[in-house]
Amino acid sequence: MKFITITTDFGNLNGFTGTMKGVIFNITPDAQIVDITHEIPAQDVRTGSIALWRAVPYFPAGTVHIAVVDPGVGTTRRPIAARLGDQFFVLPDNGLITPMLEDAEAAGKDIVIVHLDKPEFWLPVVFTTFHGRDIFAPCGAHLAKGVRLEDMGTIITDPVRRPLPKPSKSDRGFAANIIVIDVFGNCSTNLRVSQVPDLAKTTLKIAGQTIEGIVPSYGHRKPGELVAVTDSEGFVEIAVVNGSAANKFCIRLDDPVEVIFDD
Amino acid sequence: MKFITITTDFGNLNGFTGTMKGVIFNITPDAQIVDITHEIPAQDVRTGSIALWRAVPYFPAGTVHIAVVDPGVGTTRRPIAARLGDQFFVLPDNGLITPMLEDAEAAGKDIVIVHLDKPEFWLPVVFTTFHGRDIFAPCGAHLAKGVRLEDMGTIITDPVRRPLPKPSKSDRGFAANIIVIDVFGNCSTNLRVSQVPDLAKTTLKIAGQTIEGIVPSYGHRKPGELVAVTDSEGFVEIAVVNGSAANKFCIRLDDPVEVIFDD
Amino acid sequence: MKFITITTDFGNLNGFTGTMKGVIFNITPDAQIVDITHEIPAQDVRTGSIALWRAVPYFPAGTVHIAVVDPGVGTTRRPIAARLGDQFFVLPDNGLITPMLEDAEAAGKDIVIVHLDKPEFWLPVVFTTFHGRDIFAPCGAHLAKGVRLEDMGTIITDPVRRPLPKPSKSDRGFAANIIVIDVFGNCSTNLRVSQVPDLAKTTLKIAGQTIEGIVPSYGHRKPGELVAVTDSEGFVEIAVVNGSAANKFCIRLDDPVEVIFDD
Repeated sequence: MKFITITTDFGNLNGFTGTMKGVIFNITPDAQIVDITHEIPAQDVRTGSIALWRAVPYFPAGTVHIAVVDPGVGTTRRPIAARLGDQFFVLPDNGLITPMLEDAEAAGKDIVIVHLDKPEFWLPVVFTTFHGRDIFAPCGAHLAKGVRLEDMGTIITDPVRRPLPKPSKSDRGFAANIIVIDVFGNCSTNLRVSQVPDLAKTTLKIAGQTIEGIVPSYGHRKPGELVAVTDSEGFVEIAVVNGSAANKFCIRLDDPVEVIFDD
Repeated sequence: MKFITITTDFGNLNGFTGTMKGVIFNITPDAQIVDITHEIPAQDVRTGSIALWRAVPYFPAGTVHIAVVDPGVGTTRRPIAARLGDQFFVLPDNGLITPMLEDAEAAGKDIVIVHLDKPEFWLPVVFTTFHGRDIFAPCGAHLAKGVRLEDMGTIITDPVRRPLPKPSKSDRGFAANIIVIDVFGNCSTNLRVSQVPDLAKTTLKIAGQTIEGIVPSYGHRKPGELVAVTDSEGFVEIAVVNGSAANKFCIRLDDPVEVIFDD
Repeated sequence: MKFITITTDFGNLNGFTGTMKGVIFNITPDAQIVDITHEIPAQDVRTGSIALWRAVPYFPAGTVHIAVVDPGVGTTRRPIAARLGDQFFVLPDNGLITPMLEDAEAAGKDIVIVHLDKPEFWLPVVFTTFHGRDIFAPCGAHLAKGVRLEDMGTIITDPVRRPLPKPSKSDRGFAANIIVIDVFGNCSTNLRVSQVPDLAKTTLKIAGQTIEGIVPSYGHRKPGELVAVTDSEGFVEIAVVNGSAANKFCIRLDDPVEVIFDD
């Protein structure tokens, strides 16, 4: 079984992702395809990269991840493919790959990136408005079918990078930011819980509110209360118990979070 | 082929359900996964239980149904798994299982329920905020792979129950309630059509409106007209032909429906 | 591997399409099912037919396409199935099939259409409100499993047709219309780019705006600018670079587009 995931900002309205699956099954009929999400906000490369980054570690070795959030479709931006350790990626060269690439580099994994410049792996006709169907889907399918990455394009070492904002050290802790808001209105920061010396002895400030302590789970506070917890990837998360922190306190992506380590 | 369904309130925005599928395929690569819905309103356990209840009878014997509508994630509420006749369920012990359990009891089916208290069937690290990924998905995958239910946890006999409201007998018929509103605005009641002695000789009152007779299909009345029909599970449904009854008459879940058997 | 696609206006809220998949897997457990879209606007047969039409050419030979946009469910409108060249279709006889049928006729493909009038291929109980589950899903599954189309119903030659509006010749070019608006707000017309003699020497008028020339890709104009490009099926498309033409200029389905060939 060959696993392929798809992450896009195409929505589920027009059948674009269904069409990509038709292309994939034409090339490799025994693929197993998983949708990560197709509801990335239009052309929001960073949110797309985070959604994929959070899902990748849970997939089997050899999985091919196709991601298309591609404001530059039809321009000279390169289509690329990469092998980062035991996972494959097929996506536009616009920074989408950054968090996965940084993790692979930090872990000392084997890294190969190619410019997908060989039209024999594309569909015969390529429209400038839908490389997801005409380039990324067929290239991902060929990879899943067993074509060697190195045979699919020219090796490059200068992929476009768009690093996520990193929390910065402050006098008494960290200046962090909200980088993910989920469907429940839970707001994840870019600060790892492992960077916090004592969860109970930590004060957080966001949106004019003060939160005392990072608790083990939502259930440790009453419904409606604003809490800090560990999110599902190990980052500090701001949430309202059985409610939406984003809605209740008008929290948006990039909003600052002051994390203070109490004396 | 081993079938697994997933029902959640996670939406399709953040890739949570895609991640669950990665976990499943890591454990049982030849599973076939079906999404029931991920658009259950946040933390609405009853609506989640109804969506699953309506889908289950149409799945092959041996299907494993994973359902995660879980306001109590990370608290002491138990993760459970059940075999009800020839179908399996993996879900939080918060009442989600109730309608399937009641049906199995009424039909005299074989019933086994276990508390999923054996960490060897979970992911190695369990975050308090995402048991869907860390407990329910791997346990469901192990069940689909053939692990015996009885080996996955301690047998329990006291699952939390949240029975759906039942229609009550009135002088001249039934006092029923709306329990499902679908995407078209059709409103299903909790009264089975089989409880109505004569469909033509029945009067329904809802939202200040009166409907004469339960007709065989939408097409028996004109577009725009309010009708009563048999819904796709055999319950009495209120609908507007080619329109939305919910929108037109501001009908909401739990709204009362008076069903009068004419003399 | 037997491929089945599903296109509906059911949304993803109530689990209807998950239930259809259960029905299919009960009949043909090794099917591979692809969702085209379930977000067709309620009962909008034309938009449903276009979404399917655009996806079909990318699927493997032998694929069975089930489509359910069905305002007449439960009335006398016929359920039908068709073989158009090497693709199969299972859908209500309300015009949904039209663009695929016209293409097959124009290409001189082999065409067979049957009225699905043999209840042995339906579910044992058919509800008047959900033929997607009770008739179309099982018939599609039987076709995918290898039952001959001609054995599943009575051959008909008079399917209902709802042709898409065609562009009409004008003095200096074409009077076209918007027939697709995608999730990005890009607006496709019914005029093929191949009908335009000189892309650079063409003027388009829509919504009080004038566009000079059809450019090779969005990237040939600045962000925010209104452009004409070739869409992913070879039709003339109106778009705003990195924005939504539909929102910015209040463009709606059927809006007229004047296409003028410059001297």
